[in-house]
Amino acid sequence: MSYAEKSVTVLGLGPMGRALAGALVGARLSTTVWNRTPGRAGDLAARGAVAAVSAEEAVAGSDLIVVCVVDYAAANSILRRDAVTAALRGRTVVNLTADTPNRARDAAAWAARHGIGYLDGAIMTPVPTIGTPAAVFLHSGPEDLHRRHRPVLERLGGTHTYLGADIGRAAAYDLALLDVFWTAMAGYTHALALAKAEGITARELAPFAAGIGAILPPLFEQAARDIDSGSFSGAGNPITSAASSMAHIVETSEAHGIDAGVMRAAERLARRVVEQGHGTDGFSRMADLLTPR
Amino acid sequence: MSYAEKSVTVLGLGPMGRALAGALVGARLSTTVWNRTPGRAGDLAARGAVAAVSAEEAVAGSDLIVVCVVDYAAANSILRRDAVTAALRGRTVVNLTADTPNRARDAAAWAARHGIGYLDGAIMTPVPTIGTPAAVFLHSGPEDLHRRHRPVLERLGGTHTYLGADIGRAAAYDLALLDVFWTAMAGYTHALALAKAEGITARELAPFAAGIGAILPPLFEQAARDIDSGSFSGAGNPITSAASSMAHIVETSEAHGIDAGVMRAAERLARRVVEQGHGTDGFSRMADLLTPR
Ligand SMILES: NC(=O)c1ccc[n+]([C@@H]2O[C@H](COP(=O)([O-])OP(=O)(O)OC[C@H]3O[C@@H](n4cnc5c(N)ncnc54)[C@H](OP(=O)(O)O)[C@@H]3O)[C@@H](O)[C@H]2O)c1
Ligand SMILES: NC(=O)c1ccc[n+]([C@@H]2O[C@H](COP(=O)([O-])OP(=O)(O)OC[C@H]3O[C@@H](n4cnc5c(N)ncnc54)[C@H](OP(=O)(O)O)[C@@H]3O)[C@@H](O)[C@H]2O)c1
Repeated sequence: MSYAEKSVTVLGLGPMGRALAGALVGARLSTTVWNRTPGRAGDLAARGAVAAVSAEEAVAGSDLIVVCVVDYAAANSILRRDAVTAALRGRTVVNLTADTPNRARDAAAWAARHGIGYLDGAIMTPVPTIGTPAAVFLHSGPEDLHRRHRPVLERLGGTHTYLGADIGRAAAYDLALLDVFWTAMAGYTHALALAKAEGITARELAPFAAGIGAILPPLFEQAARDIDSGSFSGAGNPITSAASSMAHIVETSEAHGIDAGVMRAAERLARRVVEQGHGTDGFSRMADLLTPR
Repeated sequence: MSYAEKSVTVLGLGPMGRALAGALVGARLSTTVWNRTPGRAGDLAARGAVAAVSAEEAVAGSDLIVVCVVDYAAANSILRRDAVTAALRGRTVVNLTADTPNRARDAAAWAARHGIGYLDGAIMTPVPTIGTPAAVFLHSGPEDLHRRHRPVLERLGGTHTYLGADIGRAAAYDLALLDVFWTAMAGYTHALALAKAEGITARELAPFAAGIGAILPPLFEQAARDIDSGSFSGAGNPITSAASSMAHIVETSEAHGIDAGVMRAAERLARRVVEQGHGTDGFSRMADLLTPR
C-alpha cells in the first residue's frame, strides 16, 4: 500500500465523526481531520491525527475521504465549494452522513460530473459501538470502489454490509431503520412521562422496558413473513385488541395532560385497518394499509 | 389444599385466555372455562378443562377466577351481572385484562362493595410465551390475597412481579410498557411500507430491524438514568441530529404517498425541545418536555 492509500481524511467532528476518526487513529491509519467549527478534534491530535486548517487541505492528503455531518445540506456546503471540489478530483468520498436516498443519488451525480469517486453509507449503531464488533455499517455504490476501500472501512470496526450498486440503497435502509429506532425512542420517552405521572420512576420502568425491547426482534421477523406472504394472521393478537390498548394509553396520557399525538396517530391507523374489515388480522396488516397501491 | 383451592376458572377465551387456561390445564389444575361466544374452548375440553355454560356456573366452581378479555368494559359486562356478582362473593378475581389504572381502581371498589377479593394483573409477553419461562406477569393489589393465590398464578409460567398494594400499579406499568411496544410496532410497520416503496422487501429489512431492537435495551437504561438524574447529555447524539433524521423520514414517506402522521407527531416534539433551547441535549430530554409541571 502506498502512503496515499493508507491515509484517510474525516470531514465532520460531531460525536460520530470524532468516533470514526478515533477508530482510524486507533487502527494506526494516517488520519487527517477537519470540522467547520475549529477546536472539535478533542484528543485526536494528541493521538496522532493531523488537524487540517481547511477542508481543501484535509482532502488533499488522502485518497479516501469520509464525510460525517448532520445532513446532506451540511455535506454539500463543505464538498461543493470550488476549492474542495477541485481537490477531490480523482479521490473517493464515502459519505456516512444520514439523509434521503434521493439526496444520495443527487450527490453521486454531482461527484460523477467532477471526476470524484462516490460511495454512500449509513451507520446503524450509536457512537460507543464505533471501533468495536457491535458497530453496524451499510454501504452502497459502485462495487469496484467499495471493494477498493473496504479494507480501510473495516478498520472502523463491526460488520459492513454491501447493499449493491444503487447508491440510494444504504440511505433507504437507513431511513427505514431509523423509522423503527426514533419511533421506538419516542414511545419510550412518552412512556417515561406517563409512568412518572403514575408515580413510577424511570429506573423502575427501565428493566421492563428493556424486556419489551427484547421481545421485538422475533415479532419483527414474524411481521416480515406476514407482509412478504400477504397473510396477516391475528390468531395470537388481533388488531382490535391493539387498538383498544392504544386508546387506553391516549386516554390516560391526556388525563394527565401529556401530549399523546404520536399514539393518536398510530391508533388512527389501527382503527382504519379495523374499519376496512381487517379487525381480526394481526398488527402487521398496518404495513399493508400504509403501502401505496 | 382443598379441591376449591386447586381449581381455577378462566373467563374469556380469546387467544390470551385460551393460552392461560391451556397452561393451567397443562399444570394439572382443575380448570373451568367460559367465553361469551360459545365454541371457543378449542382443545381445552379434550385436555380436561370443564366448559361451563354460563359465567355464574363457571365462577361457582373455583376460589380463584382469572379474567382475560379485551378491556374492562367487557370484563364488567361479565362480572357485574347480578347472578355473577352474587356467585363471586367470597372468591377472588384476578383480572389480567389490560385497561387503565383508574378502571382497575373502580373495579376494586366495586369488588369490595360486593365482598369479592380483587387483584389486578398485566401480561407483558405474547401468547406463545404463556406456560414458558419467557412469560412476564405483573401483579398489584392486597398483599395477603396475592400471597394466597401466587402459587396458582405461577403455574402460568414465567416471572411474576408483585408491584404493591396500589391496585392501579399493574395497569400503570402495563400502559407505559404497551406505549413502548405499540409505538415501536407502529414504527416498524411504517418502516416496512417505506422500505417496500424503496424496493426493499420485509425479509431483507427484518434482520437489521431486529438489530435495532437489540440496541434499544441499553439505550432505555441510559435514558432512564438521564431522566431520574435530570441531566440529558447529548454528547453522543444531540436531539438536533434526531430531528434532522426524523424530517428525512417524513419527507421520503410523503414523497411515496405514505402517511407519516406518527413520525410527524414525534418530530414536532423533538423540534419543540430544540426551540426551548435544548438542542444539544440528548433525546431523553423529550420525556422531560412531555412531563406535566
Ligand atoms: N451520534 C450517533 O449515535 C449516530 C449514530 C448513527 C448515525 N449517526 C449519523 O452521523 C451523522 C453525524 O452525527 P453526529 O452524531 O456526529 O452529530 P450531528 O449533530 O448530526 O452532526 C454534527 C456535525 O455536523 C456538522 N455540521 C452541521 N451543520 C453544518 C454545516 N452547515 N456545515 C458544515 N458542517 C456542519 C457539525 O459541525 P460544527 O461542529 O461546525 O457544527 C458537526 O461536525 C448524522 O448524519 C447522524 O445521523 C449518528
Ligand atoms: N394476545 C396477546 O399477545 C396479549 C399479550 C398481552 C396481553 N394481552 C391482553 O389480554 C387480553 C385478552 O387478549 P386476547 O389476545 O385474548 O384478545 P382480545 O381480542 O383482546 O380479547 C378477546 C376476548 O374478549 C372477549 N370479549 C370482547 N368483548 C366482550 C364483551 N363485550 N363481553 C364479553 N366478552 C368480550 C372475547 O369474547 P368473544 O369471543 O365472545 O368475542 C374474547 O374472550 C387483552 O386485554 C390484551 O390486551 C394479550
